Amino acid sequence: MANKTITSPLGFRVGSASCGLKAGNALDIAVLVCDRPAATAGIFTTNKVFAAPVAICRERLVGGRAQALVVNAGNANACTGPTGLRDAEAMTTRLARCLDIEHKKVLVASTGIIGHRLPMPKVRTGIDDAVDNLSYSARAGRDFARAIMTTDRSPKMALRQIKIGRSTIRIAGVAKGAGMIAPNMATMLCFITTDAAISSALLKRLLKRSVDTSFNTITVDNHMSTNDTAIIMASGLAGNATLKTTASASKFAKALDGVCLDLALQMVSDGEGATKRMDVRVRGARSLADARTAAFAIANSPLVKCALFGSDPNWGRIVYAVGSCGVDCNQGRIDCKIGPVYVFRKGKPVAANTRRLAKIMAAKVVEFTVDLHMGQAQFRCYGCDLTYDYVGINAEYHT
Amino acid sequence: MANKTITSPLGFRVGSASCGLKAGNALDIAVLVCDRPAATAGIFTTNKVFAAPVAICRERLVGGRAQALVVNAGNANACTGPTGLRDAEAMTTRLARCLDIEHKKVLVASTGIIGHRLPMPKVRTGIDDAVDNLSYSARAGRDFARAIMTTDRSPKMALRQIKIGRSTIRIAGVAKGAGMIAPNMATMLCFITTDAAISSALLKRLLKRSVDTSFNTITVDNHMSTNDTAIIMASGLAGNATLKTTASASKFAKALDGVCLDLALQMVSDGEGATKRMDVRVRGARSLADARTAAFAIANSPLVKCALFGSDPNWGRIVYAVGSCGVDCNQGRIDCKIGPVYVFRKGKPVAANTRRLAKIMAAKVVEFTVDLHMGQAQFRCYGCDLTYDYVGINAEYHT
Repeated sequence: MANKTITSPLGFRVGSASCGLKAGNALDIAVLVCDRPAATAGIFTTNKVFAAPVAICRERLVGGRAQALVVNAGNANACTGPTGLRDAEAMTTRLARCLDIEHKKVLVASTGIIGHRLPMPKVRTGIDDAVDNLSYSARAGRDFARAIMTTDRSPKMALRQIKIGRSTIRIAGVAKGAGMIAPNMATMLCFITTDAAISSALLKRLLKRSVDTSFNTITVDNHMSTNDTAIIMASGLAGNATLKTTASASKFAKALDGVCLDLALQMVSDGEGATKRMDVRVRGARSLADARTAAFAIANSPLVKCALFGSDPNWGRIVYAVGSCGVDCNQGRIDCKIGPVYVFRKGKPVAANTRRLAKIMAAKVVEFTVDLHMGQAQFRCYGCDLTYDYVGINAEYHT
Repeated sequence: MANKTITSPLGFRVGSASCGLKAGNALDIAVLVCDRPAATAGIFTTNKVFAAPVAICRERLVGGRAQALVVNAGNANACTGPTGLRDAEAMTTRLARCLDIEHKKVLVASTGIIGHRLPMPKVRTGIDDAVDNLSYSARAGRDFARAIMTTDRSPKMALRQIKIGRSTIRIAGVAKGAGMIAPNMATMLCFITTDAAISSALLKRLLKRSVDTSFNTITVDNHMSTNDTAIIMASGLAGNATLKTTASASKFAKALDGVCLDLALQMVSDGEGATKRMDVRVRGARSLADARTAAFAIANSPLVKCALFGSDPNWGRIVYAVGSCGVDCNQGRIDCKIGPVYVFRKGKPVAANTRRLAKIMAAKVVEFTVDLHMGQAQFRCYGCDLTYDYVGINAEYHT
């Protein structure tokens, strides 16, 4: 079987272990190590309440180089004050010592419960065990994907392979969770490896672009977590001439977009309690900001989300979500489609075939399109339904 | 029994009827008539998708006078295009003819399903029947309150009585629904009557103020409906000197605030599927806008709402709702209290008495307080929990 994990690009080893942060001896701590210092870029939560590991990564990525990272699931090390910062720092020091590298070259990420201190003796043992298991194998890559899960129902991985000149370049990603997915969990983590030779400055620019068109277009419950982290490391071992020309960089960018969107869609389909996905397109907006605001107003509307769950072609909820979100619009011009079917056109209801609409609404993925006819801007985003399980997961869990 | 309905202030008669917009012969259409043209003010939805009756009321209230209004429940006459506008106009013409008054003095409101034309023959008959039932009685007032309900579990009424000089002034209000409460329903309606002598300009200013501190501080699911309407009519029959002095106007304003807040809290407690209320206070914000944004970020957070439902003192969700809403804050300064108990102070978790917290969270009304320590501004808002019933009501209903 081909290796589709983050150990697929040349130069990356991973190791996982169980250290007691999750119940039942589940894998809960993992390390990723590059054979040499890698061009590295990261994008982090914009929440003003951010976790200790986020503070450390931001600082260490100023120079654009890193060689290893350690990640744990089960405890977010968020809202933990200065002690939490010291704990996160200690995780990187421990891994650096195991690998005999500088601790400033080590990154750290955490996901899980907020407001509790990490049990550091367990974490230290976990790091040591994970280092003992370091391997270039696909199996190790899959274990890594499972180790970073919290309430995800399945591991999330994606791979793209491109040719640049005579070199084969691989880009592989692994991720967990979308938005604030789990009870009290602080969530989305994404780690991408590539063997491309590329500068960290270009890497950062392309990662930002890919994140904007993938993770930043999905919503589960409109929460930015305290721990959101996306990190890409490039080993440079593919043998390509360092990516610079517009053509090769844009080929790489497209592949990176693919990896990120792939992971983002896996996340939204695996949103808390989610059974269905909605793809929301807003067209004809006066500005991109308007298109984005309107699209997310639809995808985040609890009424639209419930209608999706109930497979109810309740277009009124879509139209008034748009009307109330503050974007420039005129109700006499608005069009709304469910799948390919117009249900509202130029401000008037359209008598649509009810049976056909019911069939469209019953699918696993439903597309809502709104055209404001105010301008040229458009935006697409992805959401999921609001279900009994969402309430159950988030109400019945107790801190 | 004292009359606590909108027929309590002098000069107001109401009548209700059933015309088949609701199932089972329930009252679904009502009229309110003043003995003489009344100083009148209205505040309407800011949703850019607004219903036909809203368009008509806005236009007719420019002069600040009206004498009657007709309201139906079961059909919102929203997203109905030019035909809907003609239907709303026809409702006012019908009532004007029955009362032998100018149709420009008649207002109209609708609530119910979106995107369907009103069955006008039924509506016309309903108006005629409601006029036949016109009465100054408390019973007629209570019938009015029931007639405007959609999925409200109970009618919502409030009354305040004040003395100004030797005159007794009454202010009475009736309301339905908070936010987008019902399946496909377009919602909040509020009608206030008073016998005070007051100019329509002052009335409008005071109504705006009262609405801002009542209806505009509650949220059920963060939806502005297409039909939101608050109208106040003043008959001037109380015999007071026209309200002008600061002292008497502020006494009136306070009583009006009381009526509106009373109705608003009834609404939020009767939110779709709601079992509990949260009172959210944000203090120490840099600006009022920041305080307001943060308070609503908490009250609208599905995770906080689920925690309220599950009586889970999950303060992490409150803190990151604040961190992610874009207001000026610094996580090292934030305080968070559940009831009177600190759970997070200056950016650090506080070891709180778990049993005490559980008891506080189990109450029908729970208060969350956040102090940002960034400035002096504060805001208070009210929300409710997110429950299985909310999902059920909104997912299982079919258009």
